[in-house]
Amino acid sequence: MTGYADARRIEALIEGLDRCTATPGQGTTRLTYSREYRAAADLLIARMTDAGLAVREDAVGTVFGRLQGLDPDLPPILAGSHLDSVPHGGRFDGPAGIVAALEAACLFRDLGLRPQRSIEVVALIEEEGTRFGGGLFGSRLLTGQVDPADLEAIRDDDGVSAADAMRGYGLDPALAGQAALAPGSVHAFLELHIEQGPVLEADRLDVAIVDRIVGLAQLRVTVRGRAGHAGTVPMDQRRDALQGAVAILAQLPDLARQTGPDAVLTVGKLEVLPGGANVIPDRVTFTVDLRAPEEAAVLRLIQMVEGCVTHAQGNGLDCAVERQLHAAPTPLSEQLRAVLTDQAEDLGLSHRVMVSGAGHDAMIMAGLAPTGLVFVPSRGGLSHTPEEWTDYAQLARGADLIFAALRRLSGAA
Amino acid sequence: MTGYADARRIEALIEGLDRCTATPGQGTTRLTYSREYRAAADLLIARMTDAGLAVREDAVGTVFGRLQGLDPDLPPILAGSHLDSVPHGGRFDGPAGIVAALEAACLFRDLGLRPQRSIEVVALIEEEGTRFGGGLFGSRLLTGQVDPADLEAIRDDDGVSAADAMRGYGLDPALAGQAALAPGSVHAFLELHIEQGPVLEADRLDVAIVDRIVGLAQLRVTVRGRAGHAGTVPMDQRRDALQGAVAILAQLPDLARQTGPDAVLTVGKLEVLPGGANVIPDRVTFTVDLRAPEEAAVLRLIQMVEGCVTHAQGNGLDCAVERQLHAAPTPLSEQLRAVLTDQAEDLGLSHRVMVSGAGHDAMIMAGLAPTGLVFVPSRGGLSHTPEEWTDYAQLARGADLIFAALRRLSGAA
Repeated sequence: MTGYADARRIEALIEGLDRCTATPGQGTTRLTYSREYRAAADLLIARMTDAGLAVREDAVGTVFGRLQGLDPDLPPILAGSHLDSVPHGGRFDGPAGIVAALEAACLFRDLGLRPQRSIEVVALIEEEGTRFGGGLFGSRLLTGQVDPADLEAIRDDDGVSAADAMRGYGLDPALAGQAALAPGSVHAFLELHIEQGPVLEADRLDVAIVDRIVGLAQLRVTVRGRAGHAGTVPMDQRRDALQGAVAILAQLPDLARQTGPDAVLTVGKLEVLPGGANVIPDRVTFTVDLRAPEEAAVLRLIQMVEGCVTHAQGNGLDCAVERQLHAAPTPLSEQLRAVLTDQAEDLGLSHRVMVSGAGHDAMIMAGLAPTGLVFVPSRGGLSHTPEEWTDYAQLARGADLIFAALRRLSGAA
Repeated sequence: MTGYADARRIEALIEGLDRCTATPGQGTTRLTYSREYRAAADLLIARMTDAGLAVREDAVGTVFGRLQGLDPDLPPILAGSHLDSVPHGGRFDGPAGIVAALEAACLFRDLGLRPQRSIEVVALIEEEGTRFGGGLFGSRLLTGQVDPADLEAIRDDDGVSAADAMRGYGLDPALAGQAALAPGSVHAFLELHIEQGPVLEADRLDVAIVDRIVGLAQLRVTVRGRAGHAGTVPMDQRRDALQGAVAILAQLPDLARQTGPDAVLTVGKLEVLPGGANVIPDRVTFTVDLRAPEEAAVLRLIQMVEGCVTHAQGNGLDCAVERQLHAAPTPLSEQLRAVLTDQAEDLGLSHRVMVSGAGHDAMIMAGLAPTGLVFVPSRGGLSHTPEEWTDYAQLARGADLIFAALRRLSGAA
């Protein structure tokens, strides 16, 4: 079997959506319910309509484009990803999965195929959490994990509530609960996403088939010492909070390496107080983001970090660690992984199994229906930047895989 | 010889000056040329007048209280310190030296002594640099190191120029040059200051006699790596700028320890970018403040830090170091040190020689006249905080030493 997906059609829609940005020339900035979001949704709806899909927008602004199956009573297969972006992000994070799913739907018509089971191309809102925080908001709404009453309280950086933003978008927040999909109403969910990491490029592979999404914890470490004048306190009489923090920080990467090849640990945020060039620091706080495929490994890593912080206690330093977030790993459907692997083989795509180190809508949708997740390569592993890139030929190979899996799962003939 | 200084008189004036603060109940905040500065100067002038001193304010607001000598043509001895404070600082940093000098002048009259050579108690403006930056501004004006034309350009945080602030204080900035003291016009300068460090308290000593002010350099180190998603980039493919910085930071304190017991090194300011908890840092910048008594040691320490940064280069990290400030050590007068040491012995004060790790007006005045600097203990080594404290009995012992030295140097009978 050879590939069918049209890289130029994919490119045209990715670029069209990319023009729906609040920051032209400075990357993609498309916040949920913004003017740019509306423009992107409208463009998508036009292309869905061109492809013969029946379009609807649900109570929270999710766009669905339905390729009706021969048996319309069978629960549909959903395929897609999210339409929002981070500020000054790239054009692929989110749209790649929507466009690949729409391309797959187009191929059904191009090839004169009719699915037995309906297929719905889906564009989810607010995955990044850029506007309303938290992240994965659109998929959490679809799976009934958000209390519609909370929409009045959730606010963006300008103080606009999610409810008011919905009203501005023409939606009634009182009806938001209607967006929740009933258990059993979805047969499967398939998502294609860019890898956002360097592994596929380094391994020169076409796609990864994700078997699970990592478990994650975020810790916050505080080291307290005593401030003092940089010139008047001898080295051996200092209680320098930064030096205490450095002793901890120096050990952390090895804790992840000891845990296993798929464990990662990142200190991304660190603050030194009081912050004067000539003042010995009395307080340092930093975050520790740690991830591993197995819950046992996450717990072990948390304990090792806590032990390391406790051990740094003393010498006049007071060290503390709080757990701020802890999410268990999410295994995806083994059955869908087998289907995706078979189809990748049939298509002659080079592939590997991968653990996703990032959260994706698939992680939430997995609670509703068997879910599969496919990665395509990210040049240089870059994401959340205007330099984010995936060659359109690579994206087309990913779309071929989504098409082949949908064909198989929908019983198309 | 026993002590003469009146701890209660000292306490009354220190507390009176402390009430001249813009932040009552939250420490001393007395910016140069502010309303509170005027109130403090007026209180000081009243006490100088009570003590029979002839008071004048010079063209930049320095207050002088002159105890006329029997030979008024001899260049006077100046004794004092600065009247300004940092925001939310303590009551002793600066005023301690002015009040000790005024107490010494009072003792001349109390004891019926007349100096051969005139003595001038001096209250300098703007040592801290809190209002107009840079620091040591008052002593630099007195020693002719500031171009009066620059007063229009130097601005405070509210955009008010030093010239306008002077006008608001009733001074004519065009005349500022008149404040410069001619070479040879001052016989000696004596300053008492709180130590602002823990050494005298730890050693249970009454006073330190400072032999030199350290040399100082400030460096700025930048480590650049590559940003990436905390979940998607394996540990062995990261170019984590923070981990690169940590490798440097871990080595720095030992460089100071290797240099000698009086060398100190401080990283007080550090920034991690982009600063997201789930983003691998691509840039870390930090300051290195290093100080040592000998210029050779300062240079050696700079080179060691530079070597350490250069060595951290590689592994995909780009490390750079810039020299931002470099001031040579300032030796103080050996002759005055001998006088102060003799008088401390006579008074039965326990004492030691000390290197000052902080800059003081004495450092600038040393370019104009032989200069001596005396430290009294700081409780807990604290300074630049409302908790800054020196027992009044300790301050009185310091005032005794200033009195005894003035008596000897002025040829009082």
